[in-house]
Amino acid sequence: MVPHLITALTGPINELEARVLESMPAIERWFRLEWMEHTPPFYTSVDLRNAGYKLAPVDTELFPAGFNNLTPEMLPLAVQAAMAAIEKICPEAKNLLVVAGPQAEESNPFYLTHLERLREVFMLAGLNVRFGSLARTLVKPRTLALPDGGELVVEPLVRSRHRLGLANFDPCTILLNDDLVAGVPGLLEDVHEQYLLPPLHASSALRRKSRHFASYEEVAKRFAKLLGMDPWLLHPMHGQCGQVDFGTAEGLDCVKSNVDSLLAKVRRKHKEYGIAERAFVVVKSDGPGGSEVLTVRDAKELDDPERRERMRRSRAQPALPVREVIVQEGVPTYERVNDAVAEPVVYMIDRYVVGGFYRVHAARGTDESLDAPGSAYVPLAFAESHQLPRRGAKPGASAPNRFYMYGVIGRLAMLGAAYELEATDPEGEREAA
Amino acid sequence: MVPHLITALTGPINELEARVLESMPAIERWFRLEWMEHTPPFYTSVDLRNAGYKLAPVDTELFPAGFNNLTPEMLPLAVQAAMAAIEKICPEAKNLLVVAGPQAEESNPFYLTHLERLREVFMLAGLNVRFGSLARTLVKPRTLALPDGGELVVEPLVRSRHRLGLANFDPCTILLNDDLVAGVPGLLEDVHEQYLLPPLHASSALRRKSRHFASYEEVAKRFAKLLGMDPWLLHPMHGQCGQVDFGTAEGLDCVKSNVDSLLAKVRRKHKEYGIAERAFVVVKSDGPGGSEVLTVRDAKELDDPERRERMRRSRAQPALPVREVIVQEGVPTYERVNDAVAEPVVYMIDRYVVGGFYRVHAARGTDESLDAPGSAYVPLAFAESHQLPRRGAKPGASAPNRFYMYGVIGRLAMLGAAYELEATDPEGEREAA
Repeated sequence: MVPHLITALTGPINELEARVLESMPAIERWFRLEWMEHTPPFYTSVDLRNAGYKLAPVDTELFPAGFNNLTPEMLPLAVQAAMAAIEKICPEAKNLLVVAGPQAEESNPFYLTHLERLREVFMLAGLNVRFGSLARTLVKPRTLALPDGGELVVEPLVRSRHRLGLANFDPCTILLNDDLVAGVPGLLEDVHEQYLLPPLHASSALRRKSRHFASYEEVAKRFAKLLGMDPWLLHPMHGQCGQVDFGTAEGLDCVKSNVDSLLAKVRRKHKEYGIAERAFVVVKSDGPGGSEVLTVRDAKELDDPERRERMRRSRAQPALPVREVIVQEGVPTYERVNDAVAEPVVYMIDRYVVGGFYRVHAARGTDESLDAPGSAYVPLAFAESHQLPRRGAKPGASAPNRFYMYGVIGRLAMLGAAYELEATDPEGEREAA
Repeated sequence: MVPHLITALTGPINELEARVLESMPAIERWFRLEWMEHTPPFYTSVDLRNAGYKLAPVDTELFPAGFNNLTPEMLPLAVQAAMAAIEKICPEAKNLLVVAGPQAEESNPFYLTHLERLREVFMLAGLNVRFGSLARTLVKPRTLALPDGGELVVEPLVRSRHRLGLANFDPCTILLNDDLVAGVPGLLEDVHEQYLLPPLHASSALRRKSRHFASYEEVAKRFAKLLGMDPWLLHPMHGQCGQVDFGTAEGLDCVKSNVDSLLAKVRRKHKEYGIAERAFVVVKSDGPGGSEVLTVRDAKELDDPERRERMRRSRAQPALPVREVIVQEGVPTYERVNDAVAEPVVYMIDRYVVGGFYRVHAARGTDESLDAPGSAYVPLAFAESHQLPRRGAKPGASAPNRFYMYGVIGRLAMLGAAYELEATDPEGEREAA
């Protein structure tokens, strides 16, 4: 199908991959037991970076877009996973309301195709699907054209005292695909009779990357213990600063000292493993918004006014000068598709891996974020059963095996998100670990 | 991939298919609710016959072989379904014991490949899989060569007072792939600490086709009510005789009168629907064994000594002259692959359709059983997502839509088996409906 993908990474067989493949039944059993204790998010996408010596998630999205980038051949897996998910939540459900993100109002053709794909998945799983929107400008149903010639209707949400729905449409479950970056609107609050998923405390406005990665580290440590390996091979170290204004330089000392100490830790790890790589960290917003990701090799680089200005401008809410910042170990990606730098993205519904693709950016380096304008998406070919390791095939020798490993790390990140949501649940009894 | 398959049946759009496709979300919801009340068999394969005017299951196998005939692309679906199945039964399980059928001892290469496929599915779902055998001749582990160059080991079963396993292998779940046609051995009885699946009362020695089809009729009626259609479009009518000796002609009157009355019923139905088909019934063993299936268009044909002799010889246990007989409405199959008569076979694990293929027999007619020496197997191509109806595509216009319908009827037959096993459970409280 897309033969070059099969060799997207054919680097040396690394110990991590070999360990993951030989431990497969134990890994799957471990996940099974974890999911008995922890509820997976409804749907998740995870960006991974494969440095050869290290494989780690760098972003765990709980309101994933991009289902349009999965191959149609992956649909049956998605449908089966959706069936399993619905059965647990609301088996008697007839209707599913999907709250579309603002990209729908902007008529973004990729996003609309993504919504249509979600509709297909849940229709095939046995639900009538309709789309709502939080956009204040939407006062009556709006028909949007799909790139394939079809249509998709987005309707205003209708709130009664206890329930949320659309005109003549009362859903059992409401699936949020709007990450609520600007905050949780009152319309969505106190919906207690229906299932609102993901829960509001998973919204971008309330999530903190540092909290996610602290939970992920806990997961990575448990998993590494199972496999008898160093958890650092799976997780990016991080530090965090609560009050930073890149304009006035308030709090910048915290960022710089975090950069210094993290670079030192990374260098020690590189030395331990004999990695010739030059250490770097990334500096990004810990909270909502801020697509800017600074790649930093020396704390002094943060004195550069041009770089600080970039960070200052990159804010979800320009009115707020202060922001929380996460400083994270940089993981280079050595995956390439047709000479362009690529990073794998894994998609999950409930606890199942349903597909994946490579995010590719020709103009970016191995140490830069690829989630930026100009990126392209190459679906992972399904014909070769990428989800599944081929028995007997040497680790690293074939894409199927690699994709299994990506599915494992993707699920670890999802499990991290499950821990995170338990720890941050305002109604939860469970304390953060 | 296999383009001729995509047009295996391109007959007129029939009302049944249109009704099934337009009712998809309601159908999936209905199944969801049924599976809340009824436990699906662990794994099931169903033979279907599509007459154009009628689509019905003709055999529901609870110890399916033939996983080797599914395409490798279908593996991920099978693995996902196996994960869901195990999670319900024995989530903490490490080991799965598969009891292989006698075809393993015979080193049947297709069957060994089938076993290897099962091993792959359950290993990928997180279990260590080993094979046991009930063969008395097996006293130590035996290594068998697989056609692809690999090997497979079959070991003698080891029974302790309360548990069943292999030497140094204590499974949580024991999966029977031997249908126990000759009866249930004592070795398998009173296994109460482990899960033995399918349960012993599902074995071929104890099952009766007439009981299954009575349960299936109940399911077909409920489903037909949901869709507002005639259940006859989905189920083959049948009659049953308890004591027949084809050698002495004892009980033959019962068979003949059943043939007469069934032919009359079928003709009335044909008249009602304006079907030009000549009515026929099939006569076959109701209980274990007996591969012979007589196609009968007139009760007088049963006076033919040659035909009776065929039925007499076709017995699982030649020592027993008397057998139970089922007389069933014949459903012709109008599916063809490369001019050979074909019938679809649907595979399920737990409640999920995981794949299918066409059983093809060049030397057989549309009104004959294709499950006979000389049959071949053509996997349903996966590249076109056969499991899923394509939205907007007209019913009948594309193979994907047809396969969805086959998956629905396959699942109805599986649900029939679930009703059947509840009704025949010796420890069940629930009475037969």
